[in-house]
Amino acid sequence: MISVEEAQNIILKFTKTGGKESIAFENCLNRMLAEGVFADRDAPPFDRVAMDGIAIQSQQLLKQQRFFIEDIQAAGQEQKTLKNPENCLEVMTGAVLPQNTDCVIPYEKITINNGSAELASTDHSPFQNIHKQGVDAKKGDQLLPSGTWIHPGVKGVLATTGLTQIKVLKSPQIMICSTGDELVPIEDQPLPHQIRRSNVYMIQAALKDLNIEAKTTHLPDDKAKLRSAIKELLTDYDVLLFSGAVSKGKYDFLPVVFQELGVQIHIHGVKQKPGKPFLFGTHGKNFVFGFPGNPTSTLVCFHAYFKLWLKQHLGIKDTSTYAHLNKDIVFNKPVTNHLLVKTSTEDGKLLASPIANSGSGDWVHLALADAFLSLPSDQTEFKKGEIFPITFLHRNSF
Amino acid sequence: MISVEEAQNIILKFTKTGGKESIAFENCLNRMLAEGVFADRDAPPFDRVAMDGIAIQSQQLLKQQRFFIEDIQAAGQEQKTLKNPENCLEVMTGAVLPQNTDCVIPYEKITINNGSAELASTDHSPFQNIHKQGVDAKKGDQLLPSGTWIHPGVKGVLATTGLTQIKVLKSPQIMICSTGDELVPIEDQPLPHQIRRSNVYMIQAALKDLNIEAKTTHLPDDKAKLRSAIKELLTDYDVLLFSGAVSKGKYDFLPVVFQELGVQIHIHGVKQKPGKPFLFGTHGKNFVFGFPGNPTSTLVCFHAYFKLWLKQHLGIKDTSTYAHLNKDIVFNKPVTNHLLVKTSTEDGKLLASPIANSGSGDWVHLALADAFLSLPSDQTEFKKGEIFPITFLHRNSF
Repeated sequence: MISVEEAQNIILKFTKTGGKESIAFENCLNRMLAEGVFADRDAPPFDRVAMDGIAIQSQQLLKQQRFFIEDIQAAGQEQKTLKNPENCLEVMTGAVLPQNTDCVIPYEKITINNGSAELASTDHSPFQNIHKQGVDAKKGDQLLPSGTWIHPGVKGVLATTGLTQIKVLKSPQIMICSTGDELVPIEDQPLPHQIRRSNVYMIQAALKDLNIEAKTTHLPDDKAKLRSAIKELLTDYDVLLFSGAVSKGKYDFLPVVFQELGVQIHIHGVKQKPGKPFLFGTHGKNFVFGFPGNPTSTLVCFHAYFKLWLKQHLGIKDTSTYAHLNKDIVFNKPVTNHLLVKTSTEDGKLLASPIANSGSGDWVHLALADAFLSLPSDQTEFKKGEIFPITFLHRNSF
Repeated sequence: MISVEEAQNIILKFTKTGGKESIAFENCLNRMLAEGVFADRDAPPFDRVAMDGIAIQSQQLLKQQRFFIEDIQAAGQEQKTLKNPENCLEVMTGAVLPQNTDCVIPYEKITINNGSAELASTDHSPFQNIHKQGVDAKKGDQLLPSGTWIHPGVKGVLATTGLTQIKVLKSPQIMICSTGDELVPIEDQPLPHQIRRSNVYMIQAALKDLNIEAKTTHLPDDKAKLRSAIKELLTDYDVLLFSGAVSKGKYDFLPVVFQELGVQIHIHGVKQKPGKPFLFGTHGKNFVFGFPGNPTSTLVCFHAYFKLWLKQHLGIKDTSTYAHLNKDIVFNKPVTNHLLVKTSTEDGKLLASPIANSGSGDWVHLALADAFLSLPSDQTEFKKGEIFPITFLHRNSF
């Protein structure tokens, strides 16, 4: 059996970056830019008034402290001109700086009386409170590189640049398949030996957190039916995610069905706990991920392997994050131990506190975890305070 | 003017928890549970086979090492019974443990020949590889408390419990209003003195990250028109978020219009940079937040004040997170400095590197930030390595 690192390297080897698509501005949140975005104008596009107050010619400060107000320059008005350099214009934040002025003095530092502004002091300098044209970017500058994650701040940049259609990386078409004859729909009352379907909804939610809408289906523990269903799914979807049927059970038909359908199995079995029977294969341009059917195994393998694939597919740089184990742990098996944890921060440190649970079949305690630490296989004692790689199971809540 | 802490306390004082609503299971991701969820069955609901292999009576291990295979107990089948204690049943992960057995031995530790399983050793103990009924939860136990954030793992628990309708906290109805006659729609080519609307889209995206769909509208810098539009909006929405028109400019009509409409203004002006003119008011059961119109001010105030309000409204405990400033900073004003940063982790520490930018009107550099540090007003020198409260501007990407 191979190690977690070997398995991850195999997946990266077979992953190619996906295509591009053009989508409406309204729908681009949390997608990845597929091309650079360039400034269509200088930013700011004009010398922009940055405080409400008056605009003057700063050289007049040597001669006078009182300025007659000629006019008002509001935001959204065409640029006006100060006619007499001994006068001023009232100016509003966001307005164009008037012609023949070079200094904005805020209301806090003046008193207005009889149509004139009296300065408290002459201690003002040229270009103060002016957001100079082009200081943040010049027309034609790249504002956002290809591969930028479109978060709210980025959406602001796209809006200002006037992009109503956004070129983003195409999301793969994904089908999530449950197997296991013990599973019944949520709305059913299970018989004593049955349980309700839940892994597919967990994976569907995890994909939605990654901004991918995926469908779910259920396949029976029947080899012929599995084969014909999967054959069809392989033509309709880029990626098939399976929960269950990849282990050594009599009805774990997936590996043999994959082989019969010409799926190349690159990984089947990884030295890890949970998730040992994890499977990864390719079929032409398509990918199959077989997650062991226990809820924790499914979710851990989704994040350890599928998310890695997706990041590379979307061109997202994979950066490891580390956290401090918050409790002593002993683990004697020579495999990677993916340990469910609840994270917190303390004095700027990321802490990971293990979730007490009864093993990979325990879906109850999975709800308490927000991440897992991957404890390396060559160590048996893991001390409080040591740092290990951490993988988050869902987006931050607030 | 009041401090950031005073402003936040005022907002918390006026915030009430919102109502509840029942929504379909499909739509409950990232909402907040409004009531506890209880186990409708034991978890697991039966003594569950946890490995593929054979099930035996463990006391037989004293007498024999070879077991004839009577039958197979698959997952999803009704519980079978081992008829002869000298025999075994093949059992599959997820199956009910057969009657008259108490020990599961995995395939890895047996050899099957001529319909019998030969054990490599007799070193097995009762209840091994059995996930005992009720060990994770008993029927009637509370699995999830009210106020739980519904992430993918929680969705798995809801599915297993059979909940097709979920009682969640009601999201407030929110309208986002831009003001400022310099603003034109995204699709327009701005005149030299105009810019495109962008803050409302940034705020709309930030709300979507919090799982709230909100609409946007634009209001003109005209007092009478503002008054009639806001009067109507106050009856249609729980919360109005404004960008712009709260400062000291000649056309910053919002504060006076609010007063004319009977809005009680609890905050107008906070000792902070950016965002000094921030406004907060109430009108009956409704809330208005006035964010200064510069992009950074708008986004910082949204997170510092509106998100605080929303968390309390949804009953989410507010927990401060701290990060290490990653560069020396000097800031001489006696106000809280909300410093845009890009976060990273290093050896389990959360680092916050300041984003170079030209001030609150600089939307270009806002795209590079993922959080802000709030540097306290009573300090002027801030050293690399010191920790300060951090607020994230958007969900984590992956």
